[in-house]
Amino acid sequence: MNFQDKLDKAVEKNNSLLCVGLDSNFDKLPEKFKKLSNPQFEFNKWVIEQTHDLVCAYKPNWAFYEARGDQGMKELKLTMKYLKKKYPEVITIADAKRADIGSTNEGYVKSIFDWLGFDAVTLHPYLGKEAVEPFLNRKDKGCIVLCRTSNPGAGEFQDLKVEGKPVWQTVAEQVRDKWNENGNCLLVAGATYPEELAKIRKLVGEMWLLVPGIGAQGGDVEKTVKAGVNSKGVGMIINSSRGIIFADNPRLEAEKLKDEINKYR
Amino acid sequence: MNFQDKLDKAVEKNNSLLCVGLDSNFDKLPEKFKKLSNPQFEFNKWVIEQTHDLVCAYKPNWAFYEARGDQGMKELKLTMKYLKKKYPEVITIADAKRADIGSTNEGYVKSIFDWLGFDAVTLHPYLGKEAVEPFLNRKDKGCIVLCRTSNPGAGEFQDLKVEGKPVWQTVAEQVRDKWNENGNCLLVAGATYPEELAKIRKLVGEMWLLVPGIGAQGGDVEKTVKAGVNSKGVGMIINSSRGIIFADNPRLEAEKLKDEINKYR
Repeated sequence: MNFQDKLDKAVEKNNSLLCVGLDSNFDKLPEKFKKLSNPQFEFNKWVIEQTHDLVCAYKPNWAFYEARGDQGMKELKLTMKYLKKKYPEVITIADAKRADIGSTNEGYVKSIFDWLGFDAVTLHPYLGKEAVEPFLNRKDKGCIVLCRTSNPGAGEFQDLKVEGKPVWQTVAEQVRDKWNENGNCLLVAGATYPEELAKIRKLVGEMWLLVPGIGAQGGDVEKTVKAGVNSKGVGMIINSSRGIIFADNPRLEAEKLKDEINKYR
Repeated sequence: MNFQDKLDKAVEKNNSLLCVGLDSNFDKLPEKFKKLSNPQFEFNKWVIEQTHDLVCAYKPNWAFYEARGDQGMKELKLTMKYLKKKYPEVITIADAKRADIGSTNEGYVKSIFDWLGFDAVTLHPYLGKEAVEPFLNRKDKGCIVLCRTSNPGAGEFQDLKVEGKPVWQTVAEQVRDKWNENGNCLLVAGATYPEELAKIRKLVGEMWLLVPGIGAQGGDVEKTVKAGVNSKGVGMIINSSRGIIFADNPRLEAEKLKDEINKYR
């Protein structure tokens, strides 16, 4: 199945644009999980069991697993095995922010898509399309290119003006016109910049966006959804991480956010 | 010791600007290594034993280890332990091309600098300085920012003109003026673009550059060295990977390249 069909089905099944970020920082795990032999995996399982029918996607950020070396990678693998087996319909996004040159990327393609079985990955645009073709060539996988990121200092290079247009706009246009031959490209557009999000939506038509920055980072749900949905009232994977997984009741928070998003779609 | 002092000492000790890229792609290893229980580590050990007195640095590309999942990460760890113990004076560069937002990078700082003990890491500039501060704040570690990369499609975004200047020039200037408060920044400038390399040298004064693209990628040694050395005849870490490690006699190739580089310094 191609990536877009799988994503459409996942969204439809749970009627949800919500993505839960499995940013399971070991230091922040509840004490009862820290004592277990696979703490990050057990915590993820607990979060997944409470939220799997409320989301379209899960997005583990690679850094929190790699921080624990080969043990962390093992627990990321256990998490992926669990998800693939119990909830194969949910989309899995490796928030790994990768991009190397040409054939070197084959190593990441193997680890992220084949070894771990992720459905999609986040990518840096700086090296150009030619460099990341090993990712783009995988029609069954989503390639989510950083366009306008959610962090406070995102503008340093992203807002530079090229013939009157910010660099992020050129990234959006290149991905739309050149990178997306297999229909498997998405863009990252932060909820913390709703004006830019709205512009990106206008630029890319129906293309899907991954939207981080809701919750702990301060993005507003109403503004974000209104700025970012496509003509079909979908087209966004809206991520919340800490605001859900470290809440006293992750299910309650996920439900609240899912419903709030649906209210403004 | 700060990063620059360690680098200066490593260069002086072996009188070498050569970096050997430990791009130990499992599929390309000689058959006799493939059969061992830690093939990538055993191969690296063999390369290191032949070349440690000819180099200033080793640069494993992360993708080739991650391609083999937690086993690959374990072998990267074994390689680093071996290097730290036997040749602690040689610089180690994690060619991991990372950059996430803010505190998320702490995970990569932990895995790359603390768990594995690398001296330096390669970074994507797209998210801006604010995002990568967890790396920059480590005065004892080198932060090597992608500026003009060696791949054929590098120009797609890097050559876009901002007020008449290419984006890569703005990256060089920002790193020079803003990112380098701790004196631990370097830039990546590909040997495949000697004109741009010469311009980067003029822009950044004495700052050190990591220069990939020699050897298999086709960069010319004389042009590269003449374009890139600083006023002291140093300032470049010149990398060759496949051309050395997969040669019949890695020592011979490393020696040849080291001497050729020194001839033009």
